[in-house]
Amino acid sequence: MQQLTVDLGERSYPIYIGSELLQKTDLFAPHISSRRVAIVCNETVAPLYLDRVKHALAENEQTVIVLPDGEQHKHWETLQLIFDGLLADRHDRKTTLIALGGGVIGDMVGFAAACYQRGVNFIQVPTTLLSQVDSSVGGKTGINHPLGKNMIGAFYQPQAVVIDTATLATLPPRELSAGLAEVIKYGLIYDADFLTWLEQNMQRLMSLDEQALSYAIERSCAIKAEIVAQDEREAGLRAILNLGHTFGHAIETEQGYGAWLHGEAVAAGMVMALQMSCLLGNISDVDVQRGIRLIRQAGLPVVPPATMSVADFLQHMAVDKKNVDGKIRLVLLEQLGRAVVTSDYPANVLQQCLSEDYGALVGMQD
Amino acid sequence: MQQLTVDLGERSYPIYIGSELLQKTDLFAPHISSRRVAIVCNETVAPLYLDRVKHALAENEQTVIVLPDGEQHKHWETLQLIFDGLLADRHDRKTTLIALGGGVIGDMVGFAAACYQRGVNFIQVPTTLLSQVDSSVGGKTGINHPLGKNMIGAFYQPQAVVIDTATLATLPPRELSAGLAEVIKYGLIYDADFLTWLEQNMQRLMSLDEQALSYAIERSCAIKAEIVAQDEREAGLRAILNLGHTFGHAIETEQGYGAWLHGEAVAAGMVMALQMSCLLGNISDVDVQRGIRLIRQAGLPVVPPATMSVADFLQHMAVDKKNVDGKIRLVLLEQLGRAVVTSDYPANVLQQCLSEDYGALVGMQD
Repeated sequence: MQQLTVDLGERSYPIYIGSELLQKTDLFAPHISSRRVAIVCNETVAPLYLDRVKHALAENEQTVIVLPDGEQHKHWETLQLIFDGLLADRHDRKTTLIALGGGVIGDMVGFAAACYQRGVNFIQVPTTLLSQVDSSVGGKTGINHPLGKNMIGAFYQPQAVVIDTATLATLPPRELSAGLAEVIKYGLIYDADFLTWLEQNMQRLMSLDEQALSYAIERSCAIKAEIVAQDEREAGLRAILNLGHTFGHAIETEQGYGAWLHGEAVAAGMVMALQMSCLLGNISDVDVQRGIRLIRQAGLPVVPPATMSVADFLQHMAVDKKNVDGKIRLVLLEQLGRAVVTSDYPANVLQQCLSEDYGALVGMQD
Repeated sequence: MQQLTVDLGERSYPIYIGSELLQKTDLFAPHISSRRVAIVCNETVAPLYLDRVKHALAENEQTVIVLPDGEQHKHWETLQLIFDGLLADRHDRKTTLIALGGGVIGDMVGFAAACYQRGVNFIQVPTTLLSQVDSSVGGKTGINHPLGKNMIGAFYQPQAVVIDTATLATLPPRELSAGLAEVIKYGLIYDADFLTWLEQNMQRLMSLDEQALSYAIERSCAIKAEIVAQDEREAGLRAILNLGHTFGHAIETEQGYGAWLHGEAVAAGMVMALQMSCLLGNISDVDVQRGIRLIRQAGLPVVPPATMSVADFLQHMAVDKKNVDGKIRLVLLEQLGRAVVTSDYPANVLQQCLSEDYGALVGMQD
C-alpha cells in the first residue's frame, strides 16, 4: 500500500492506494468521529462492494443510502435523498459519511457532507479510475444545474481517501478509458516524463495491469495533491487541472449530462485545447498529433460532436466558472508538460479552434 | 454611525449600524469584488428599500432577484431561483450578492453565496430587528428541510453587515417583537446589566425610540460578535446563542414553518428554558417570573401551543443539530446573564418541563 498526503495544514488528509483496501477497518477507523456512519453508494456499486465496506465498518452503527447511478442524477433531487436518509435516522453533526462509488457519488456525498447541519466529516472511497485519480482528491464537491455543470457546490475536504485498485477489475472498459483521460491530462499539464511513460505503458493500463495502474494512480494523485496544496480554492494555479474541461463541459451540457462520459468529453476537449495551443504557436503540429495518438490509444473520442456549432460552444463556455468579467478563460499548453490559464488570446483564434475540422485533423494519423 | 468588527482573522468583517445607511455607496463599495452585483430581496422589501440600494450601487452592473416572502419559502426551490437568476445573467465567481431583507433572505442568500460556483462574496443588509441583532452576524446560513429547520447550510461569513435602523420604521409590530426576543436572549445568556437596561427601556424600544433601538442593536451585535469570534463553528460556547431555540424549533416545526414567527417560538422556548433551569435549581422562581415579565412586555408569547404534547416536543428536539449521539443538548441558565450547554440533566426533569402548565405559570403575574 502507498500513502500520500494532501498537505492543507489542519485540513490535511491521507490518500491510501493499494489492492483490497475496502475491507480494511484500520484504514477507516481513525477518520470516523462517532459511532454513526452513513454509507452512500449507487445501485451499480452496491451489489459489488457495499458488503465489504459494511464489514469493514461493522463496529459502527450504519445507515445505507443507495442512489440512482449516473451523471444525469447529479442534481438537487438526488442530493435530497441523502439528506432524507440522514434525517430519517437522526444523524447528528458528529456523523461520518462514506462516499462509495465514482465521481458523481463522491461529488454529491462531499457536497452533502459540506451542507448537512452545516458540515460533517466524510471519507472518499472512489471505485472508478476517474474518481481515483481526480475527483476524490482536492475537495471540489457539488451538483449540476440545468444551465451549467458543477455550478452549485463547495470546497470541502474529506478526512481520508481510500483507493482500492481491485475495484477497477469490474469497471466497464468505457469508464476505464474515461479515467485515463484525466491520467493523460496530468502528463500534458505537469509532467512530460509521465507523458512518455504513458505512451510506453498505455497497453498495460488498458489491459488492467495492476502494477501499471497503481503507478499511474499514484503519480496522478501526487500531481493533483501538489497542485491543490499550492492553491486549494483555485485562485490561480489549480485551474490548470481543467485542461480540456471548458470545451468538455460545453460538450456535456449540450449533449445532456450522461450522454458523453465526463472523461470522454474531456478527451475531445483536450484535443481542442491542444489545437488551440498549436494555433497560438505554443506547441507544434507534432505535439498535437502525439497527444491525439495517446488519447486515441486510451480508447477515447478525439473529435467533438459533429452537431455542435461554434455558437453552441461559445454559449456554454460563457458560463464556465473560470471566467472573470465575461472573458472566457482557457487552460492551454505552453509546451507538453506545462500549462497556463489565460484569457489573453485573439478571439478569432478561438473561433478558428472551434470551427476546426477535427475529423480531418485526427485523420492525419490514419 | 457605529462600527463593530467580527474578529475572525482573515475572515473578519465590519458591522455598520446607523440610520439611513442603505443609500451610502461608500459603505458598500470597499466590499464589492467586481463590477457585477446581484441584489436579492423579497416582494415585501422590494417596494420599500430596493431603490435605495440600487441607487447606492449605481456604479455596478446589477441583477435583481425578488423572492416570495416568508419562512415557508426558506427551502431549496426558492434557493434555486437565486441560482437561476445568477446563471441567466452569467454571474461569475467574482460577483457579489447583496442580501436585502430579513433573516430568511439573509440565510438563503448567504447559503446561495456559499454554494454558487463553490463560493462568492456577499453583503448582509438586514431590514428586520431580528436579522439585525442576530441572523446577519456570524455566518450561519442555510435552508429548512421538511424534517428540521436549518438542517442544510454552511458556515459562511459575509464581507460586511450594513444595518440601517431607519428600516425598522416600516416593520410590523409583530416582527419588532420577534426581534426583541433575540435581544432579550443576549441579556439572559450573557449580560445581566443589559437585561436590567432592557427592563427599564422596553417601552422605548416598543415605541421605536431610535436611540434606544440603536443601543439595543449595538449591544446585541457586540455580544454576538464576541461569542462568534471565540467559537465560529459552534464547537462549544456559541451554542449558548440557542437559548430557547431547541424548544422553539420544535414549536416551529410542529406548527409548520411560518405559523409562528421564529422570534415568537424562541420567546415561548425561552420561558421553557427558564423553567427547566429553575426545576434544576439553577435559578429561582423570581428569576423565571422576571424573564416572563420582560418577554411579555415585548409583546411575545410566553406559553407554548396548547396542542403540543410532550411526545411532539421530544420527537422534534431529537433531530436538533446540537445533539450528540442521540442525547438532547439544551441551553440552560446557570444564573441570569450566564448560560451553559448541557445534556447532563435527569430525563424526568425534561419531562416535567415539557408537561408544565405554562398557562398557570404565567398566570401568576396577573
